[in-house]
Amino acid sequence: MFKITPVDRAQQTQIQHRIDNKTKPIGALGQLETIAMQMGLVWGADQVQINRPQMLIFAADHGIANSGVSVVGSEVTAQMLQNFVQGGAAINVFCKQVGLDLEVIDCGIIQPLSNEPSIINSRLGGGTGAIHKRAAMTLGAVKQGFAMADDLIERHHQNGTNLIALGEMGIGNTSSASAIMAAVLDISPADCVGRGTGINAQTLKRKQMLVEQALLLHHSELTDPYSILACVGGFEIVQMTGAMLAAAQRNMLVVVDGFIASVAALLAVKIDANVRDFLIFSHQSEEKGHQLLLSHLGAVPLLNLGLRLGEGSGAALAFPLLYAAANFYNDMASFEEANVESVLLDD
Amino acid sequence: MFKITPVDRAQQTQIQHRIDNKTKPIGALGQLETIAMQMGLVWGADQVQINRPQMLIFAADHGIANSGVSVVGSEVTAQMLQNFVQGGAAINVFCKQVGLDLEVIDCGIIQPLSNEPSIINSRLGGGTGAIHKRAAMTLGAVKQGFAMADDLIERHHQNGTNLIALGEMGIGNTSSASAIMAAVLDISPADCVGRGTGINAQTLKRKQMLVEQALLLHHSELTDPYSILACVGGFEIVQMTGAMLAAAQRNMLVVVDGFIASVAALLAVKIDANVRDFLIFSHQSEEKGHQLLLSHLGAVPLLNLGLRLGEGSGAALAFPLLYAAANFYNDMASFEEANVESVLLDD
Repeated sequence: MFKITPVDRAQQTQIQHRIDNKTKPIGALGQLETIAMQMGLVWGADQVQINRPQMLIFAADHGIANSGVSVVGSEVTAQMLQNFVQGGAAINVFCKQVGLDLEVIDCGIIQPLSNEPSIINSRLGGGTGAIHKRAAMTLGAVKQGFAMADDLIERHHQNGTNLIALGEMGIGNTSSASAIMAAVLDISPADCVGRGTGINAQTLKRKQMLVEQALLLHHSELTDPYSILACVGGFEIVQMTGAMLAAAQRNMLVVVDGFIASVAALLAVKIDANVRDFLIFSHQSEEKGHQLLLSHLGAVPLLNLGLRLGEGSGAALAFPLLYAAANFYNDMASFEEANVESVLLDD
Repeated sequence: MFKITPVDRAQQTQIQHRIDNKTKPIGALGQLETIAMQMGLVWGADQVQINRPQMLIFAADHGIANSGVSVVGSEVTAQMLQNFVQGGAAINVFCKQVGLDLEVIDCGIIQPLSNEPSIINSRLGGGTGAIHKRAAMTLGAVKQGFAMADDLIERHHQNGTNLIALGEMGIGNTSSASAIMAAVLDISPADCVGRGTGINAQTLKRKQMLVEQALLLHHSELTDPYSILACVGGFEIVQMTGAMLAAAQRNMLVVVDGFIASVAALLAVKIDANVRDFLIFSHQSEEKGHQLLLSHLGAVPLLNLGLRLGEGSGAALAFPLLYAAANFYNDMASFEEANVESVLLDD
């Protein structure tokens, strides 16, 4: 469905040369240099410019939330969407600070907030099936979700956006994400299930048991990313996966938030490995499986602040670092321009 | 000389209550919550507002730089100051991005840039003595440097600044900083000496040998922070140490950059332990001794991006996180305000 053109590695030498000739020791800007290189590879060595960056929050409800895997119930998903619309959530505060436009996408919460026209309607249903008892959704819903994500990204692409950040909201979605991770990587749920919003040891045990149950129930069908999404996925995870692929196809960079978004990234990479070059991993969250997941993706996240909020909050907080990477690449003087003796490695 | 009032811990409960009632799981904003708490303790629980933040770059030259401990010679210190004035360095780009005013202080480079009136004259000489052969400076120079730093901070305080960030420039200053660290903590120079701007293994060996030689030469006099600064310090390290103490005395927060600035912080804490509550450690640099130094200071830095540039660059890059801490504390909705079911830990 998506066609991603690999980045042009022939530009690498030119970009590295420009980075190394800035007035600083070779490599002294660490990960910012890696990001500048990535931007150069994706956008071209000459024009590393973030245009109309967009934060997208994908929201949905999860049938499994009824089985006591979270601190609060599914009603909090809608309440938090209302909070996003009213501007009171962490992500509102951070987006405002860093100049990020914020769009909330209802991928399938239980009851739509019909009085909130600013929320994008991309509903695939009113919450998924409880994954430990039945399939989360049909394969058709997965495909439909990918198409909706494609439309969404196309709209922002038409608008001039060349960088999107993805966050999520959905009580119960760490359960779904953990099941996906375990299925894709073929590892034990115990390594993937964590405390989410902050559950206690007893709830954690139940959550882990239900995820195991889900994986057993669907065992024979967990053969490819689409089926895995249909069996144990979530409506927001489907659309985040689709959005990453759709964005990469349009040469947009994608800033990945925490655990849930990284699980979507894992699926996207599984579908088309070329998407990896377009992904920027913003932070390592406190959620249990995240570190393992990042290392599977070969990702070194920019921040590690002990965040475990979701909403795209870590992605928004990493934004100034992306601007810093673009700005040093564009605006710092070279040794020649500044008349500074070249500080080169002597070994 | 400086009189620092300890922060008022009686406010802690009130601040924590406000943080915990924001629409997010308890503790979900990780280190941002720690920073918000620190701001609340220093500035008062009601008003967490960054005012006229100021980046101060302290520059000086070092006699030891003549003995081949660096990739480049002392002339690069002045060249980089020129670059700062012209706006071409990394720190210019980052300060511009995050809205930080930048001031460059000549604490004693070899030849002053007399045609640059924007550079603050706080000269204690034209480079320190080579610490492996003689004292870096007199005790009188140390005291004079503290007084100059006090004047500098008083001026910014009068101007309404309540937060300063400290960076430095000075070829050779990692040698001096390593010697100070080894002397204060009474540990082996091998644990403190690193690659600075990027020296090779052979130069590293020489640098380590010269630092050892310096510590042996001054051994009997390395008894207190002032004498340590006189024996193996640097003009910029003296004034950074003084500036931290002067700022804390005036209830200003201090953002500490990398290795050199952290060594100044170590000295400041040694002089008055109350200063610690006013220090924010911005990042962990790649410089060898930094991690050990931070752990001695009980500091968990905000960033770990593999930076090793100095100039205050890490401090500037951490700035948006400080604004994020203040903004969530001031502007996020509480559960009550947003009508969201309280997400409290259930254990």
